[in-house]
Amino acid sequence: MSIQDNYKTLLEKSKRVIIYGTVSSLLGWDFETKMPPKGGKQRSVQFSTLATDMHKMIIDPEGGKLLNVIKEDENYSSLSKEQQRNIYLIKKEYDKATKLPTELVSEIAQLQILGVETWKKAKEAKDYSIFKPMLEKILDLQKKKAHYLDPNKDPYDVLIDTFEPKMDSVMITKLFDELKAGLVPLIKKIQAAEKQPDISLLRRSVPIELQEKLSDDLAKVVNYDLEKGRIDTTEHPFTTGYFDDVRITTHYYENEFDNSFFSVVHEAGHAIYEQNISQEYIYQPIGQMSSLGIHESQSRFIENIVCRSKNFWEYYFPRFNELTKGIFADIDLKAFIHAINMVKPSKIRVTADEVTYSIHVIIRFEIERDLISGKLTLDELPAAWNQKYKEYLNVDIQDDSEGVLQDTHWAGGAFGYFPTYALGNIYNAHMLHVLRNDLPNYDELVRTGNLKPIIEWMTEKVHRPSNLYDPADLMKRITGESVNPQYFIDYLNKKYAELYNF
Amino acid sequence: MSIQDNYKTLLEKSKRVIIYGTVSSLLGWDFETKMPPKGGKQRSVQFSTLATDMHKMIIDPEGGKLLNVIKEDENYSSLSKEQQRNIYLIKKEYDKATKLPTELVSEIAQLQILGVETWKKAKEAKDYSIFKPMLEKILDLQKKKAHYLDPNKDPYDVLIDTFEPKMDSVMITKLFDELKAGLVPLIKKIQAAEKQPDISLLRRSVPIELQEKLSDDLAKVVNYDLEKGRIDTTEHPFTTGYFDDVRITTHYYENEFDNSFFSVVHEAGHAIYEQNISQEYIYQPIGQMSSLGIHESQSRFIENIVCRSKNFWEYYFPRFNELTKGIFADIDLKAFIHAINMVKPSKIRVTADEVTYSIHVIIRFEIERDLISGKLTLDELPAAWNQKYKEYLNVDIQDDSEGVLQDTHWAGGAFGYFPTYALGNIYNAHMLHVLRNDLPNYDELVRTGNLKPIIEWMTEKVHRPSNLYDPADLMKRITGESVNPQYFIDYLNKKYAELYNF
Repeated sequence: MSIQDNYKTLLEKSKRVIIYGTVSSLLGWDFETKMPPKGGKQRSVQFSTLATDMHKMIIDPEGGKLLNVIKEDENYSSLSKEQQRNIYLIKKEYDKATKLPTELVSEIAQLQILGVETWKKAKEAKDYSIFKPMLEKILDLQKKKAHYLDPNKDPYDVLIDTFEPKMDSVMITKLFDELKAGLVPLIKKIQAAEKQPDISLLRRSVPIELQEKLSDDLAKVVNYDLEKGRIDTTEHPFTTGYFDDVRITTHYYENEFDNSFFSVVHEAGHAIYEQNISQEYIYQPIGQMSSLGIHESQSRFIENIVCRSKNFWEYYFPRFNELTKGIFADIDLKAFIHAINMVKPSKIRVTADEVTYSIHVIIRFEIERDLISGKLTLDELPAAWNQKYKEYLNVDIQDDSEGVLQDTHWAGGAFGYFPTYALGNIYNAHMLHVLRNDLPNYDELVRTGNLKPIIEWMTEKVHRPSNLYDPADLMKRITGESVNPQYFIDYLNKKYAELYNF
Repeated sequence: MSIQDNYKTLLEKSKRVIIYGTVSSLLGWDFETKMPPKGGKQRSVQFSTLATDMHKMIIDPEGGKLLNVIKEDENYSSLSKEQQRNIYLIKKEYDKATKLPTELVSEIAQLQILGVETWKKAKEAKDYSIFKPMLEKILDLQKKKAHYLDPNKDPYDVLIDTFEPKMDSVMITKLFDELKAGLVPLIKKIQAAEKQPDISLLRRSVPIELQEKLSDDLAKVVNYDLEKGRIDTTEHPFTTGYFDDVRITTHYYENEFDNSFFSVVHEAGHAIYEQNISQEYIYQPIGQMSSLGIHESQSRFIENIVCRSKNFWEYYFPRFNELTKGIFADIDLKAFIHAINMVKPSKIRVTADEVTYSIHVIIRFEIERDLISGKLTLDELPAAWNQKYKEYLNVDIQDDSEGVLQDTHWAGGAFGYFPTYALGNIYNAHMLHVLRNDLPNYDELVRTGNLKPIIEWMTEKVHRPSNLYDPADLMKRITGESVNPQYFIDYLNKKYAELYNF
């Protein structure tokens, strides 16, 4: 068998897993949006059947053998860059799956469900102590998992790598320290500013059917192709799907049009990434996302950098007024833009504004890191949480439900996930810097609602290469330098100085 | 390994295929109802991946070995009736799948798509000659398939068995000859009757949102559990799903409320069958439908025997008038009942009434049978079709699109499928006869809208045993005698003599 034959066999196996993944995604979408109330039992049977079979396919010894044969073939270097990267990614997944003992995998899976259940109860009771014993088990299993994956590496770094390949806590600490150093004084300036927005206008009632029309219109404006997607409603908005079928969800509240508005453009940003993956890479490992951080860079780019910008609203406000039938016709455009960009330190991450959001993430990162290293104990966790919120955001946490229990990630065993949210901000502001050089008329394009060249730039730089590069390498290729948080700090300072007039 | 261990292993393998089937059904549902317009390519990749893997699981030599070991085990008779039946059904499927050469299977699959495409073109052009060469190939492959499955049996019987196990063309010919002998004079009597219904009332406009409310209400009335199902819209109504997730579709036309009304109760009848399969049999071969004919008996029972009956409308008409906000308030109940039971020989099967419907099916059966035996050639087909429509229904076929090209079944390679439609009528009228003995207050139950005991009777007799028996055996168990079309003829004569006053 030639190396090309072996490669082809290996790739077909890998594609099969990815196709199963798309099937599983659809089951997940249906579960969240359309499934009858009592369909859950059957759905969990379907999920676990597919998951078991996907796992079997990944750890198939045939695949392991093929990987070895290919790696040791004297013609290895005759493979293209894309082929070599596919092999690298398949091997990485194979190693990850085969290194973990089956019992550990199933223990983690079980604890994931129990963990979320217990977390819910604890959150409701506003009592961290209910959750603590469970969190101890979860943390313990995650450390074990990290040890199995790579006993020679810092366990937290191993976990980070599963979400943001080749990032580690030293790099992130450096980035986040710089970010924090830039954000904290900016937040103080904003809070001290005399000019403050009036957000009461955002609470005006906008009928759901108008908000639905807004969603469809926004999809068009930001180039989310609804011929290859659709918008449904769920309690928590999300994006799911792949390539020519990528679906988003939102949640409509009559008195919070902005809630759905920015959810739609955020999720559309995620969806655009998936829709524009290279046709030639489809169902291949290189045709998957580069990382969660890169994915988040895309959603936050569309949501914040584009759709909360002054330029965008100069274009969109008349159209917005038309679609909302004059509900906001008496509003001054500047006041409107200021309202949707209000900065206010708060306790809850998911509703945080563009400036303070990263601080929420940094707090979680620092805590995760110190929990796993043992620098912080689980007993000290709530106090450490509350103290950081006081120190970084000057916010007083009243109880655990609005503090350490607010997010579900740890309950589900996701340690190392949080940093990706803030990395998305750092990445996309850095991308914006290059984008502005490549498209000097960037402001004009946004101001005229002509986002196509901008999306095309992103497609060329980010969407199409998808997983051909790890995130740091991808950023280097795009920007010519290492990931640098200064661009994000500069972007924020410029934008908010103008808004808050300081 | 004990026989019980081997049985357990074999059953788990079989369950896996059935679970995959439920996943594939959901993909199919989504394809018809929610999928974005351009999602078809990915969906077909998903479908064919699952289908290939299901096929692999079915023909897995491990399964074949287990079947042999179990069959030859000296303790075979220690297995329960249910276990033995599961083994019988698994073996039947294994034999069917392993007897067909892979190339034939893939040829048939390819021709299925091409066949439907060509049929569509021919139907549009109203020209059978466009379709004929394709039909020749399809018929040829179906004969080959039958030969591979059982070279010693009449090929048509082999094909029938794939839809209606253990039925054959001799038995069906006998049943259908009797049925025809009963129906043809009845139709003549109805046509000759002085009293004819006025169906113009059915064309009154009923807003779609009212029709949707009617659908939900009907689900409740006929005991279709919407906690385990849902109603969506598609061009052609269908039912799909299993046990605790069984979904139906309908199609709303503002000026044809009856179209959706009777579609909903028809599909609900199918859905009730699947929802009430025995919990202990779930995902097992015995927990599947007994046959297409039995399935159709359930849909037609709810649609025709229950929901087109005088008794039902005595109960439902006030509720119907309330839900339709008085649109039919001026209509006499008897006139209404007559209108929804109008009998009129026509050219198109899918829109045929309760009496003439079976004639449409008999025509297709006689033609299929004679095509496969060679008694009829493909050149003679359209003339034979038109001649039978003239002879049995006194209807003149103008062109092939309303004649031989009206149904898609043959284009998709489904020979032996049509008879199941009329068998459903024969089965359910026979069931009704026994049901009336078991529940002497049957009429009263329907007249008061108390359908629960009736559905429970069906559940006990038909739904719960599901595939524990082949259809003829199931009928024998329920009725104590062989399938007898006379009950259907009697039922129709009584009902329509009253309606048409002869």
